[in-house]
Amino acid sequence: MVMKVYGTVLSSATMRVFAALYEKDLEFTFVPVNLRAGEHKEEHFLALNPFGQVPAFEDGDLKLFESRAITQYIARVCADKGTPLVCEGKPMATVGVWMEAEAHQFEPLAWKLRRELVYNPKFGMAVDAAVVEESEAKLAKVLDVYEARLSQSKYLGGDCFTLADLHHLPAIATLMGTPVKKLFDAHPKVSAWAASISARPAWAKVLAMRNQQ
Amino acid sequence: MVMKVYGTVLSSATMRVFAALYEKDLEFTFVPVNLRAGEHKEEHFLALNPFGQVPAFEDGDLKLFESRAITQYIARVCADKGTPLVCEGKPMATVGVWMEAEAHQFEPLAWKLRRELVYNPKFGMAVDAAVVEESEAKLAKVLDVYEARLSQSKYLGGDCFTLADLHHLPAIATLMGTPVKKLFDAHPKVSAWAASISARPAWAKVLAMRNQQ
Repeated sequence: MVMKVYGTVLSSATMRVFAALYEKDLEFTFVPVNLRAGEHKEEHFLALNPFGQVPAFEDGDLKLFESRAITQYIARVCADKGTPLVCEGKPMATVGVWMEAEAHQFEPLAWKLRRELVYNPKFGMAVDAAVVEESEAKLAKVLDVYEARLSQSKYLGGDCFTLADLHHLPAIATLMGTPVKKLFDAHPKVSAWAASISARPAWAKVLAMRNQQ
Repeated sequence: MVMKVYGTVLSSATMRVFAALYEKDLEFTFVPVNLRAGEHKEEHFLALNPFGQVPAFEDGDLKLFESRAITQYIARVCADKGTPLVCEGKPMATVGVWMEAEAHQFEPLAWKLRRELVYNPKFGMAVDAAVVEESEAKLAKVLDVYEARLSQSKYLGGDCFTLADLHHLPAIATLMGTPVKKLFDAHPKVSAWAASISARPAWAKVLAMRNQQ
């Protein structure tokens, strides 16, 4: 039974799941969900994710949602295939710390900046300059911590590429096309890390899916 | 070597870690951090958590931060002791989904409501009634989803109490002393679940620590 991803290639959370599947070299079926038509709020989709958000995921009779739960499932169920993405024991505890840092330190600010600098202009909505300024200042401090961490280890979770790095990819891809790039440029270790993880063949496949849209 | 928790009994994230330790019936050392004196921004604490937030955690030479990463470490490293809290394989994937739901659907709204209804009044700051109203409306919808879930299974992650439930405990304890209790009262399955997990002996020990403060 081939895994199924319901979502859209324009959604960061959906791209995160694609990245994990390509790193694991897994075949999957992509079922596009039309957000503009409100398909994610329709009954058939709510049966997959009751919160009405993309992505949703099926592996046989197992239904999952929340992108980071899906990537962890993929990483664990296919532990022996493709890139490891997770590990065991104490090293995994440190990977866990940096997965949480992505979710609670990095992404809330990265999301505000994407909303203000990319999505609001795209949909004709006003940009709140104060939110941009405050979020940039806070993100710069988060990147200071990342810079120190990446001076100690090649990747956030340790010496290997893991989900702790992968989860950042969609936000980084979008932010690099905005003035927020300057914050990355000001952090040489972070910049080198962002360039290195963005150059992974699995991520190139995700971007190719998006560009075909 | 006994585990060490750095934090404060008034911090939800620190209480989450205590709850996991008590469920596992583990001895630990609690090292209070004086947030009012800004101790969490001092060099010795930043060496434990570079983001300058409580809790931080040590187990021998392993240093961790981010409460949900710490609870997962405790649950895995002491898998055979006390309450299981996590499981393996496909059932764990579902526990993972509801751990993410707590972090990304429940807690952001629960935090805004605690800030407006408890912490802002306590520190003489204004309460934003519009934020309260919007957050209550959104939390009610999240609890609708929880109600449906808890009609299918006794706990969020399945038939057993896991970290997916435990992570909610500190927020629920505080919200039950605010008008937000009415949202729980309007959801009978959620109310019964909240009462059941709040009555656990491990949680009583955490509340006793807080009340001794």
